[in-house]
Amino acid sequence: MRIKSFTTYPLAVADPPLRSSYGRHAPYALRTALVLETTDGITGIAEAHGGDGPLAALEAIKPMVLGMDPFQLTRLWDQTADPSGAGDRSQTWFVPGENPRDARTRSYAAVEAACLDLIGKAVNRPVCDLLGGRARDAAPFSAYLFYKHAGGGGLGDDARDDEYGECLTPASMVAQTHRMMDLYGFKEIKLKGGVLPPEDEIETMRLLRAEFGPTVPLRIDPNCAWSVETSVMIGLALKDELSGGGYFEDPTAGMDGMAEVRRRLLAAGVDTPLASNVAVTALEHIVPAWETGASQVILSDPHYWGGIRAVQRMSMLCDSLGLGVSMHSNNHLGLSLMIMAHTCCASPAMQFACDTHYPWQTEQDEIIEGGRVRFVDGAVPIPDKPGLGVSLDMDQVHRLGERYRSLTYRKRDDEAEMRLHVDPNWKRILPRW
Amino acid sequence: MRIKSFTTYPLAVADPPLRSSYGRHAPYALRTALVLETTDGITGIAEAHGGDGPLAALEAIKPMVLGMDPFQLTRLWDQTADPSGAGDRSQTWFVPGENPRDARTRSYAAVEAACLDLIGKAVNRPVCDLLGGRARDAAPFSAYLFYKHAGGGGLGDDARDDEYGECLTPASMVAQTHRMMDLYGFKEIKLKGGVLPPEDEIETMRLLRAEFGPTVPLRIDPNCAWSVETSVMIGLALKDELSGGGYFEDPTAGMDGMAEVRRRLLAAGVDTPLASNVAVTALEHIVPAWETGASQVILSDPHYWGGIRAVQRMSMLCDSLGLGVSMHSNNHLGLSLMIMAHTCCASPAMQFACDTHYPWQTEQDEIIEGGRVRFVDGAVPIPDKPGLGVSLDMDQVHRLGERYRSLTYRKRDDEAEMRLHVDPNWKRILPRW
Repeated sequence: MRIKSFTTYPLAVADPPLRSSYGRHAPYALRTALVLETTDGITGIAEAHGGDGPLAALEAIKPMVLGMDPFQLTRLWDQTADPSGAGDRSQTWFVPGENPRDARTRSYAAVEAACLDLIGKAVNRPVCDLLGGRARDAAPFSAYLFYKHAGGGGLGDDARDDEYGECLTPASMVAQTHRMMDLYGFKEIKLKGGVLPPEDEIETMRLLRAEFGPTVPLRIDPNCAWSVETSVMIGLALKDELSGGGYFEDPTAGMDGMAEVRRRLLAAGVDTPLASNVAVTALEHIVPAWETGASQVILSDPHYWGGIRAVQRMSMLCDSLGLGVSMHSNNHLGLSLMIMAHTCCASPAMQFACDTHYPWQTEQDEIIEGGRVRFVDGAVPIPDKPGLGVSLDMDQVHRLGERYRSLTYRKRDDEAEMRLHVDPNWKRILPRW
Repeated sequence: MRIKSFTTYPLAVADPPLRSSYGRHAPYALRTALVLETTDGITGIAEAHGGDGPLAALEAIKPMVLGMDPFQLTRLWDQTADPSGAGDRSQTWFVPGENPRDARTRSYAAVEAACLDLIGKAVNRPVCDLLGGRARDAAPFSAYLFYKHAGGGGLGDDARDDEYGECLTPASMVAQTHRMMDLYGFKEIKLKGGVLPPEDEIETMRLLRAEFGPTVPLRIDPNCAWSVETSVMIGLALKDELSGGGYFEDPTAGMDGMAEVRRRLLAAGVDTPLASNVAVTALEHIVPAWETGASQVILSDPHYWGGIRAVQRMSMLCDSLGLGVSMHSNNHLGLSLMIMAHTCCASPAMQFACDTHYPWQTEQDEIIEGGRVRFVDGAVPIPDKPGLGVSLDMDQVHRLGERYRSLTYRKRDDEAEMRLHVDPNWKRILPRW
């Protein structure tokens, strides 16, 4: 069994105008589908970051993948070694997918996922069972809340095209949460912060705790919008709201800043775990994060951490160090959701519900045959099918590809969207507060 | 595919009278072969520690293995959790295989290896390629030298039955090394020390360096026979001999003692890495060993560390911490050798040649069909066959089983052998020097 074809499909996926400290989501999120076919006619599929940069990086390893035995992944990993890839891999200034230094881990991860999908089909086993066997049968996800503008983004600019509507106040966030919890059955909540002034985000968290009670863990993630001072102030203010299985994610920029926030919170008697997927994005960051106290929970990602096995190993490393493990999400479709679900189920130490943007995408832009993945009680069950358990609807892939080719932009730029729609002088400033 | 039969075969294997700080090897080393068969008639095999203790522990998980899907290993691992298994897992006082607290990792490892063998046969791939793909095509081993008495042990008490003869002096160790290097082509050397007075072992190491030169890395492992004082003295004396890819293994007992040796050697300007498989025998020891400096190289073992995937993960953990990785050996036959070779090839971070007792066993007691595994330039090539790449000679298995049943002892007791043959009052004393 050798890989005889390698085809990438760029995709543009309608996305509502979600807000974060990076800015505002564009009308279309960019993704890439990868299809590998073997000499014996088995197909393996994966979804990866999109846009021309990640696409070119993925195409660059195509010559190494063509002709390879899909079991020989370590060899591919070695072949893709890029000495120029060293350097800052934080997501402080690059959104995930846009950091050129992640090219190796991102591209390898896409090929690994597609190879595991086709190996699973060849041996008639789900991907999570190829990797030592599942630790659980379903992957729990959390409700991932966003402040947002009205209008459906790529779905149409009319407010009627957006099921969630405008959400730029604490009270409207409670309504958003109810809707999302009712639709998906999530048991944990993550609020994307760093958008409204701190007092409003504190208020939002307090309303959420009051509404959903202490059995629903809460997290807040402002993507480094706050100074150390502000982070400590908010960490103290949200001491109760973040207790009981929650965490405080990337309040401030950089490993040093995070470590300082930790020291000052601990000195004040608050041991809310700090989580990170901005300062800590790679295997080589974990030990320093642990040593300095910069992070007590690390957010994995089977896309940019270098694949499903890489997440299994990073979660074991975290577990050995006494660190918690969770999972980061970018905008994605059902194929990435399945990669994330198999990763979670194959990683015993993944004790927090994973992030997902999936509720922000819709049936009309799904690329999976048979339509969107169904959640059961906030979790994605592993299908009783081989590989990743899903297949591509090629009509949809081509439709989203046509749309990609028609776009004027080919990379994610949330700042540009802010300037276009909100404030012509908007810039990302860290810290903003 | 489900497991429908689980059969253990105790084995007694002729072994020469090798010496270590634990005492003297008995005439027969004890091993266990495990054979699993699936509902579709595929057989998976493994070799494990022997003797009635390890055998009973392995038999104890048989009810969990019967009926299981061989891919669902994580579930088996969870099922074998034993809260009473916590506690001292060092090998300071127990030889490997005899520590009852290793029962879970040992027994699980045997089942994992047999499951990977049968999965490999089912999907037509070597075991190392089921685990992400091999990092190398052959596993390098080192020449594992022992001071020893004459006479072949279980091969016959006559000196003519022992190809290596008595070796209780520095000069005779040079002859032993030449013979073993010539026969197997090893490129690295490990001396089992803690037997002769320190000045004689220092002399042995100096002769070996003089004879084989600085391109052949040397290690010495006295299994904790020395005090901290003596360890530091020897570490200083062997500064040059242990440089260039060598290491100083378990000179003294316990993590604290090892850390003290490290501190004192560093203070004297000697940074020879300390290695351990006595103080450090489990995943939970690695971080403390790294923090305290007790060990810079950890010796894995796919038998008592909990299997092949466990070694992959421990080696990744070591690599992340900047620790080196090597591999420990007990007396074993060709089936364990293949488990060790696949483990090495599936673990990119395994940068030292692995230990093996294989040269001390002979063709007449091999249980592998077709006879003993061949080394090429000191390494075991991964066979171009599925699974572990070897099969059992059941006539030999039954012959070694008959011998096992005829023995008066059913556990390894090197002290008893010393009292019987060398000194009726011999006791293991730590430190001896």
